[in-house]
Amino acid sequence: MNVLITGGCGFLGARLARTLLAGGPLALAGGPAKDIARITLADRVPPPADLAADARVQFVQGDLYEQAANGALPLADTDAVFHLAAAVSGECEADFDLGMRSNLDTTRALLDACRAAGHAPVFVFSSSVAVFGDSPEQRLPAVIEDTTLPTPQNSYGIQKFIGEQLVADYTRKGFVQGRNVRLMTVSVRPGRPNGAASSFLSGMLREPLAGVRARCPVAPETPVALASPGNTVAGIVRAATATAAEWGARTAINLPALTTTVREMAQALERVAGAEATALIDWEPDAAIAKIVTSWPSRIHAARAEALGLKADASFDAILRDYVRENAQAVTLPLKG
Amino acid sequence: MNVLITGGCGFLGARLARTLLAGGPLALAGGPAKDIARITLADRVPPPADLAADARVQFVQGDLYEQAANGALPLADTDAVFHLAAAVSGECEADFDLGMRSNLDTTRALLDACRAAGHAPVFVFSSSVAVFGDSPEQRLPAVIEDTTLPTPQNSYGIQKFIGEQLVADYTRKGFVQGRNVRLMTVSVRPGRPNGAASSFLSGMLREPLAGVRARCPVAPETPVALASPGNTVAGIVRAATATAAEWGARTAINLPALTTTVREMAQALERVAGAEATALIDWEPDAAIAKIVTSWPSRIHAARAEALGLKADASFDAILRDYVRENAQAVTLPLKG
Repeated sequence: MNVLITGGCGFLGARLARTLLAGGPLALAGGPAKDIARITLADRVPPPADLAADARVQFVQGDLYEQAANGALPLADTDAVFHLAAAVSGECEADFDLGMRSNLDTTRALLDACRAAGHAPVFVFSSSVAVFGDSPEQRLPAVIEDTTLPTPQNSYGIQKFIGEQLVADYTRKGFVQGRNVRLMTVSVRPGRPNGAASSFLSGMLREPLAGVRARCPVAPETPVALASPGNTVAGIVRAATATAAEWGARTAINLPALTTTVREMAQALERVAGAEATALIDWEPDAAIAKIVTSWPSRIHAARAEALGLKADASFDAILRDYVRENAQAVTLPLKG
Repeated sequence: MNVLITGGCGFLGARLARTLLAGGPLALAGGPAKDIARITLADRVPPPADLAADARVQFVQGDLYEQAANGALPLADTDAVFHLAAAVSGECEADFDLGMRSNLDTTRALLDACRAAGHAPVFVFSSSVAVFGDSPEQRLPAVIEDTTLPTPQNSYGIQKFIGEQLVADYTRKGFVQGRNVRLMTVSVRPGRPNGAASSFLSGMLREPLAGVRARCPVAPETPVALASPGNTVAGIVRAATATAAEWGARTAINLPALTTTVREMAQALERVAGAEATALIDWEPDAAIAKIVTSWPSRIHAARAEALGLKADASFDAILRDYVRENAQAVTLPLKG
């Protein structure tokens, strides 16, 4: 079996590749389980060293829109596409045309390339909880269901929601076997801060654990809906293995999320690394970031995902302990217990 | 004030043009009322004679995508765009690429042309009740609200729903003042049958009134949600005059619909034109058409439209009497009462 991961050299794409490579035979859409012969990573940047060293990993470097439009992707013998590549929310707000090209045109070109391949590959589309946005004109319900009407409040959310519609119709037409999956805010992300408004939801843990000061720009009582990297990848893989009947409607499913607060995240940090760690958090409100973060939903009833056996992370303590175990080289503070 | 109507020579576009030309000064989006100096009709086919003879009417013939992309539309001094042009559902199912071009690419090109004009014209987008579709995987609720999640079951519905998202985001960005309006099934349409599955919902009245046999391909108890041509145009005009505050959320509003049944429609025909008329209806079920028609919602709670002062037609008798009065030349049967 051959797999294509777009954005495959990013944090989530690389983790997905490692999970698939380590996971043994995979049963796509309820079909027979098969070993993974090849994973193609399509990205602008080269893969991490461990993936580059794996003989099963192929790397196709370049602009995904051009790759999809020009036949540079090995779709003729690809069984499953995981489409993770995207311009992020901040980029899309700053450069409208960039977002339309990277998220809308590229998704459509990739779907058209799959259609041209002619064998209806499994197509997992990583949508986002960012399709939901609260606004004075239209309040979000207290709890988000799979059937809640998305009301995106930024271009990234609009483009992701349009992508869901394309995947749904290309699936109905038999061009792909689409699986629309809405990812929650992923925390704790390793590595460096990025331009996303949600960046601090990883940074306020990751930086103090490395002995570095970090800013929390929202009030401690701010509720947030999170999923760990491992749980997020588990949801993406489960989307690919579900049969059409298990999957059900072509509309997107919300992945499960742990509802917590920024205060509880800081308390978990103190339990793991002591007051020395939480003393490194600067509680400095930023109205612009707070406006974005508080527009996101914090309570998700992920009924369809749960019916597929997916669960929210048990606690933020568990998420944080996973991070510490998986990223020991990035943790310099002494840990407790 | 200058107006552009795409699909302006079609049945609804021409009726909208006549309504605007006869209606006196228009207050767009709550602004000052102004006389209409020019209505540009963009279409592939020429306008009806009465519109062609009006000095205020300009006709731009051609393919709308090319017109929008090539600067052939007079957007620099256009105050309001009514975007009615579309490939219909049957065409979009038969030719996927045609539908994507006519409905998605053309809507985007028209929005981009408005954006390039730089003065954020009012942009009324005619979406459709076809964004709602019942399926075994996802049942529609008994009553459709403005906040009901659309689950399109055909490409036309998907493309209209994507158009709504584009209009919403171009509005949020300040490129246009968008108004997403979902039209109900329009009955009684004058003229000839077309390829739409809903065509019989006009034909089973119009043809018998002209002394011609007509087929009803669904069971008499089939519920349907209808709006008269006049009420539909009233909804489109109201969308253009509503202030941003009156309009509210950038998501689409459902126009009001009269819920009736095919049997009640035939009974209304009998009251207007006697048993001689209803004897011309052939009740011959067609499973393919019935499948499509019964997937549509029949009960619409159009809360936002009602808050704007819009109402469903009072009865199908009233709709039918309007048709007879407005289309006397097409009615050959003697009328009762």
